[in-house]
Amino acid sequence: MKLSRTYLPLLKETPAEAVIASHRLMLRSGMVRQQAAGIYAWLPLGLKVLKKVEAIVREEQERAGVAELLMPTIQPASLWHQSGRYDAYGPEMLRLKDRHGRDMLYGPTNEEMITELVRAGIKSYKELPKTLFHIQWKFRDEVRPRFGVMRGREFLMKDAYSFDLSPEAARRSYLRFFAAYLRTFARLGVKAIPVRADTGPIGGKLSHEFVVLAETGESEVFTAKGLVEKTPPPTSLDYDGDLEPLFAEWTGTYAATDEMHDEAAFLALPEDQRLQARGIEVGHIFYFGTKYSEPMQFAVEGPDGRAFVEMGSYGIGVSRLVGALIEAHHDDQGCRWPVPVAPYEVGLVNLKTGHDGTDGACHRLYDEAVAAGLDVLLDDSGDRAGEKFARMDLIGLPLIVTIGPRGVEAGQAEVKDRRTGAKQEVPLTGLVDYLRSAILPQRRLA
Amino acid sequence: MKLSRTYLPLLKETPAEAVIASHRLMLRSGMVRQQAAGIYAWLPLGLKVLKKVEAIVREEQERAGVAELLMPTIQPASLWHQSGRYDAYGPEMLRLKDRHGRDMLYGPTNEEMITELVRAGIKSYKELPKTLFHIQWKFRDEVRPRFGVMRGREFLMKDAYSFDLSPEAARRSYLRFFAAYLRTFARLGVKAIPVRADTGPIGGKLSHEFVVLAETGESEVFTAKGLVEKTPPPTSLDYDGDLEPLFAEWTGTYAATDEMHDEAAFLALPEDQRLQARGIEVGHIFYFGTKYSEPMQFAVEGPDGRAFVEMGSYGIGVSRLVGALIEAHHDDQGCRWPVPVAPYEVGLVNLKTGHDGTDGACHRLYDEAVAAGLDVLLDDSGDRAGEKFARMDLIGLPLIVTIGPRGVEAGQAEVKDRRTGAKQEVPLTGLVDYLRSAILPQRRLA
Repeated sequence: MKLSRTYLPLLKETPAEAVIASHRLMLRSGMVRQQAAGIYAWLPLGLKVLKKVEAIVREEQERAGVAELLMPTIQPASLWHQSGRYDAYGPEMLRLKDRHGRDMLYGPTNEEMITELVRAGIKSYKELPKTLFHIQWKFRDEVRPRFGVMRGREFLMKDAYSFDLSPEAARRSYLRFFAAYLRTFARLGVKAIPVRADTGPIGGKLSHEFVVLAETGESEVFTAKGLVEKTPPPTSLDYDGDLEPLFAEWTGTYAATDEMHDEAAFLALPEDQRLQARGIEVGHIFYFGTKYSEPMQFAVEGPDGRAFVEMGSYGIGVSRLVGALIEAHHDDQGCRWPVPVAPYEVGLVNLKTGHDGTDGACHRLYDEAVAAGLDVLLDDSGDRAGEKFARMDLIGLPLIVTIGPRGVEAGQAEVKDRRTGAKQEVPLTGLVDYLRSAILPQRRLA
Repeated sequence: MKLSRTYLPLLKETPAEAVIASHRLMLRSGMVRQQAAGIYAWLPLGLKVLKKVEAIVREEQERAGVAELLMPTIQPASLWHQSGRYDAYGPEMLRLKDRHGRDMLYGPTNEEMITELVRAGIKSYKELPKTLFHIQWKFRDEVRPRFGVMRGREFLMKDAYSFDLSPEAARRSYLRFFAAYLRTFARLGVKAIPVRADTGPIGGKLSHEFVVLAETGESEVFTAKGLVEKTPPPTSLDYDGDLEPLFAEWTGTYAATDEMHDEAAFLALPEDQRLQARGIEVGHIFYFGTKYSEPMQFAVEGPDGRAFVEMGSYGIGVSRLVGALIEAHHDDQGCRWPVPVAPYEVGLVNLKTGHDGTDGACHRLYDEAVAAGLDVLLDDSGDRAGEKFARMDLIGLPLIVTIGPRGVEAGQAEVKDRRTGAKQEVPLTGLVDYLRSAILPQRRLA
């Protein structure tokens, strides 16, 4: 993308309402713009990251054998009367009436609707298990939205649902998502640890939160250092195989948020292993049995007669993850994106726009790099060099290539690694190969 | 995808409310399920098509140099007070109040919001032109939603907006979208003709509708046969070049809907060229000048002083297109998808699930075809052969491969072309190459 073709409005000043780094940096670097409290427009730079996060989440759901569908944002209240949650949900549910006066709502979650959808089509236990996911905007009318996209009102969520005949089969589905989540967060470039969680308003029997460690996290996490450093399951993981050993390995170490904390168990860890830190919840999985299938009368004929279907639900906060990623990857100058989720992989600075030599070299390099499959942003603006460098540091692309008149004469460009700050002179002739070999291995972790 | 892993609930009976083919077929083939009047869940099969349509629309916007962003679904009413449209819009706007009693609405369109967004970041005429698009769910509270996704209340739309310094520059932006739309619809596999349109409630100076000819269309179209058969602009089209000759070529022939019909002009066509048909509106483009920038005070310093920005907006009904595509491509047995938008490119029928020979051959072929980049649906169910064939015909995949015990023995499979009905025996050894050479050339038209 050429800067002149996209829309990247930076803010000079830090907005007063932004108290955490991700909120501040997303506003300053023109990733989002607030339209109402907790409601954001995703400008081109922010949308690029959101879509990369979404794509990785989707790929790992598909790898785990989960099929995608898409439910609407607006739901009829009648569905929620079936489960009994319409009255129970409280003021976070955005309720509305259509022009005919019918009660509707903006979906804050989809247990009721997915139960209706699958109930309508599944007649026999032979069609189970089913696991389905969707990635859709949700609305929760938080009383005090804050921290930018980390606690917004309109937010993008991946929610998945499992339907099984027996508790044993439901546990297998649960483990499938557990394993997929470990892979997902690792690929995104964050260290998320699973902690046993309270089942809360969704209810249920088994539940884990996935928490990214970050200073600005809303909850307190207690765990062992070893858990944070564990290697995620490999690409070759067989989701149809026995996942119990993997689950045992990842849940055998003490890990809890303040809500579920057991001080004695924590103190039983060797002292040099104890880790107390702040965390951001980025995923939450639940096995809740027949909590919805029973009131909504979703039963199938099994080999042993008619039984209510066993269900679970599995969420990832897709838009929240963009904020969490910045909390984990930034410095004083701005964002510092890991390659897999960087808005662009390479930033290309033309030191002297209007100078024939640098213009030519920059456009040639840009065309060549794009043709080689790299995701490149070319700063073709007429701004001063200092402004261009500050902009690249703020938006935080992994590699920044600078081409100036002297470099063109010497046949050299400067390549800076945004993470380490290391700079290197690279011959223009081999530059695209150099960039590819630096970027490609980082695209897919694990 | 294996049938056992996805969720494809077919309806045996035709739902009484479905009066047109696309509505009927989308419900029967398990593409969508209604959740409330005009509000649909997209089941896996329908979502596959929706996403392929969306991807082609996006690709052609990007090719034309338009940058993507994403605006939220919920908007503050205050924005619409700035333009004066809050009171003017009428009951099709879904209005609501949040928990603090603030007036909000579910966006039916985004002229106001995009004007606010670009106004906030553009300070100088040197940053113009800007063209931006987003693909987002909209809500219009139709008094009588009907025809399934063709006239739903919650629908997916691509809307784009252009910002220019002068009417001449705005016209160049308009022509850019005009050309992109010709390419988009051709690639989707429909014949959409541009007709001069009334500017309606959006207002403005220049407007075209893009209309797909189909018997069930809501409007009457008058044009010349030659226009329907024209070749769309090639991939190599230079969007930065002069598009006036292209525009003149495509608008030089009489074409109008009943709203704007001029009988005398139509009768001036040679009699054997006159074409009167029904049409479905799938795109609409507007140049409306300063209609929003003036009340919303979006002006920039130009070389000749301060001027209000010249704007246009450009819509494509993405979810509606799925219905329009079926209207254009179906027969008595079901859908008949063109390759670029088919939910899967190849259907693979295992004639005898449970038979070692056919199971083995089917899974080998499936793995090989998927590895070769084909989008395949394997019917691995235990249903009777007749049911499997009827299902494949109903969902309408372009090529249907059948493998049975006798075929495996003979080393042969039957390949049926869903469009022509032609059947052919193909050796199993060269089958994937055969499928690739049949599918790949059809993936990208024009």
